[in-house]
Amino acid sequence: MSDDQELGITESKEHSTGEWYAEVVQKAGLANYGPEGMSGFIVTRPRGYALWETIQNELDARFKSTGVQNAYFPMLIPESYLEREKDVVEGFDPEVAWVTQGGYEELEERLAVRPTSESIIAPYLSQWIRSYRDLPMRVNQWCSVIRWEATETKPFFRTKEFLWQEGHTAHASEDDAWAETTTRLDQYEELYEDVLAIPILRGKKPEHDKFPGADTTTTVEALMPDGKSVQGATSHYLGQSFAEAFDITFTDEDEDERVAHTTSWGLSWRALGALIMTHSDDQGLVLPPTMAPEQVVIVPIWQEETKDDVLEYAEGIAADLEAAGVRVELDDRDEHNPGFKFNEWELKGVPLRIEIGPNEVDEGTVTLVHRPDGESVGADREGIVDTVHDNFDEVYAKLYAAAEENLTENVREASDRASILGTIGQHGGYVKAPWCGDEDCEATIKEQVAAEIVLVPFEGSESDTEPIHDGETCALCDADAVETAYFARSY
Amino acid sequence: MSDDQELGITESKEHSTGEWYAEVVQKAGLANYGPEGMSGFIVTRPRGYALWETIQNELDARFKSTGVQNAYFPMLIPESYLEREKDVVEGFDPEVAWVTQGGYEELEERLAVRPTSESIIAPYLSQWIRSYRDLPMRVNQWCSVIRWEATETKPFFRTKEFLWQEGHTAHASEDDAWAETTTRLDQYEELYEDVLAIPILRGKKPEHDKFPGADTTTTVEALMPDGKSVQGATSHYLGQSFAEAFDITFTDEDEDERVAHTTSWGLSWRALGALIMTHSDDQGLVLPPTMAPEQVVIVPIWQEETKDDVLEYAEGIAADLEAAGVRVELDDRDEHNPGFKFNEWELKGVPLRIEIGPNEVDEGTVTLVHRPDGESVGADREGIVDTVHDNFDEVYAKLYAAAEENLTENVREASDRASILGTIGQHGGYVKAPWCGDEDCEATIKEQVAAEIVLVPFEGSESDTEPIHDGETCALCDADAVETAYFARSY
Ligand SMILES: [Zn+2]
Ligand SMILES: [Zn+2]
Repeated sequence: MSDDQELGITESKEHSTGEWYAEVVQKAGLANYGPEGMSGFIVTRPRGYALWETIQNELDARFKSTGVQNAYFPMLIPESYLEREKDVVEGFDPEVAWVTQGGYEELEERLAVRPTSESIIAPYLSQWIRSYRDLPMRVNQWCSVIRWEATETKPFFRTKEFLWQEGHTAHASEDDAWAETTTRLDQYEELYEDVLAIPILRGKKPEHDKFPGADTTTTVEALMPDGKSVQGATSHYLGQSFAEAFDITFTDEDEDERVAHTTSWGLSWRALGALIMTHSDDQGLVLPPTMAPEQVVIVPIWQEETKDDVLEYAEGIAADLEAAGVRVELDDRDEHNPGFKFNEWELKGVPLRIEIGPNEVDEGTVTLVHRPDGESVGADREGIVDTVHDNFDEVYAKLYAAAEENLTENVREASDRASILGTIGQHGGYVKAPWCGDEDCEATIKEQVAAEIVLVPFEGSESDTEPIHDGETCALCDADAVETAYFARSY
Repeated sequence: MSDDQELGITESKEHSTGEWYAEVVQKAGLANYGPEGMSGFIVTRPRGYALWETIQNELDARFKSTGVQNAYFPMLIPESYLEREKDVVEGFDPEVAWVTQGGYEELEERLAVRPTSESIIAPYLSQWIRSYRDLPMRVNQWCSVIRWEATETKPFFRTKEFLWQEGHTAHASEDDAWAETTTRLDQYEELYEDVLAIPILRGKKPEHDKFPGADTTTTVEALMPDGKSVQGATSHYLGQSFAEAFDITFTDEDEDERVAHTTSWGLSWRALGALIMTHSDDQGLVLPPTMAPEQVVIVPIWQEETKDDVLEYAEGIAADLEAAGVRVELDDRDEHNPGFKFNEWELKGVPLRIEIGPNEVDEGTVTLVHRPDGESVGADREGIVDTVHDNFDEVYAKLYAAAEENLTENVREASDRASILGTIGQHGGYVKAPWCGDEDCEATIKEQVAAEIVLVPFEGSESDTEPIHDGETCALCDADAVETAYFARSY
């Protein structure tokens, strides 16, 4: 292993979250910064990419079981195609990387490296869709996109190039398209809650912060331990505006020509950022067993005279676990002592450690240690596969519970400007407040504590259980409140 | 489905192979041409992308079971990084797409959209590798690359942007690196022969046609029905030249600093081109069951009074097959007659059709029809899963046998210029000839019949069984022959 991995984490999650995050990403071997002259780009190392692959597999299976097919569209988009979005979006002005030369020639028209693919996918949907029998049509693409924003790099959170999936669908009716929008939001929620061990809030973005041209942008938001919100994924009901601009029409059962309703939805590797940020600690990366490339590490502890017995016993356990499909690593390296190994695997986020010494061999037992809190559990060798699965469940539950506690403790209410500012300033987290719907009312909060409205509940969303705005006045002006705004600082 | 799919193939595979290929790709719904102004780019539609996903799954599993990890590197590479390859490759001059503007700013240094990633991966391997314990190090990336060549577009064969995987590895010794090179070539061969039903020839490229900077470029070559060879994948032993240029060194067990030996290996979606070209016919796409998104289509044939019984019977069979993991489609559409359905599924390449009419219901049987040759087989309803699997094997064997016959019939020998030219001109295929190793001797063949040396046998390769050059003279000059050259026209 390279030198940097032999050193532990030096920054504190609580006191210097940004530096701590960067250190965990580097030292757990997840990513490196891009080469000189390429600020904003990162290299995703195998341990980081394996996490992305797990997310891909989990989401892709859900997409496919609900009618989505993958496809691949060109990574370059002619400027004139992007400009067609001006029909949809006033003032559309993409900050993108432009290809202007091909080989030795200047191109006649600049080509954008895709910042998102609506403008190149929509014309093909238009071509492929003829009749109602072709609907719904759903395509998804896993790819990388570039957005040329000059901000400080934060691996997986803020990078000029990032990996994501973008789904694009067309439907015969608003109801169908809206059902699609919420189906994808449900799947994103499942990913966060059942795979990443991160509880989320569902909502929609306020009108002024929608995806340009969308009718409704829905979102899942996750609260990070530093009190900031992460937009975990978005699912847009685009209405008919894109379909009109790009001529996505179909012949209905009565042979009438109709305009389709479209959606798009995406999740990026920012989900990895949320995963790392939420669970990790001052010893390094922490991963739920659902995500960990190695779910169990077995560390044998031997003296010269017990080595053979201990190793044989450990190998038997590793074999049993592997046969049961558990991702297990037996760390039988001679050159490092157990303490060094504990630290290294803790740094890398392995959720469960099995320690085996002569006592365990004599007694036919094992000692299991949970990564998140160091809890140590004795168990019989017999039934090791069930035991390990039970402990996975326990570790997952611990991680989820901690994140859930952070979330529920940090949703607060406020009904005037001073308490919004004060609450955000003191606690971070979400502040619910009655809101008139006017962007101007958000502006002062943004200026003073850098918080914005990250979501408003929408009908049927969980965050809609207690509408607090009935009969109330906007917390920020004299107008009547029409919805509940969730203010938060965000990534 | 859109209009174009309701029409069959109009071109002839034998008489207008190029046009026929383009028509099959379009009408089977595999790909469309890129938008106006984007010649050389294609849109890979869901049915085409599903084929690529199967190749990815097959190869990725083989790679991972032999120590390869996936990673992801930036898609843009600074020009100065590419130029470091000049240390390795004299006259290196990439025909690439250049990003020169980011947002509203001119970049200080042009960035190439990756044409291949050696120059950005090697510096990181250099950084990650410290000691012999870090070796072998193997990373692979699935991505798209752009090569700005202005040639006629042929989907999957010739496109400016294409999908591929590129593996990059570093090793402590030449032996290890060479073993890696052949391991990957073995896996490519397996993919072709066991998954794509295409027999291949293994060999290495002549010195003058190696990957720039490589010590040895090995290749798998597949013969298309039109007599041209397709370079199916390549695996390069790079020697120490890249490691020296990019400083990939390690400390060995004696604490001495040593230079690593590296390899790279890649397979692109050209494999899809070979697949489509090899097996398809004048009725459309033909796929082996290993590759087909739908392996079986069930077409029920009913009259009004038998409809319920036939459908119920068909549904039972579909359920049994699906439960057994067979990818089955029951085509119970009312609006089309069975003949229309037969044609449509033949166009789309479904390898096995099950026809079910009232007779089959009464007798407890099914009728199975093989896509490649239309052979019709009666079988009992009982044991349908085993029957279908047996028929998959038969269909696969038929496809492989036909391709193998084409290959074995079209490897010919020649010992002088006239017979090389004549044989290529008359038959196409491969012509084996004794060769002195001089590029000049290839030049005249290239000029006159557009054929080149696509491979020479290397030790241990199958094509090395009969060295014909012993004691012979070069077929093209007076020098002694030192190897056997395989001449062919190629894609
Ligand atoms: Zn207000
Ligand atoms: Zn010669």
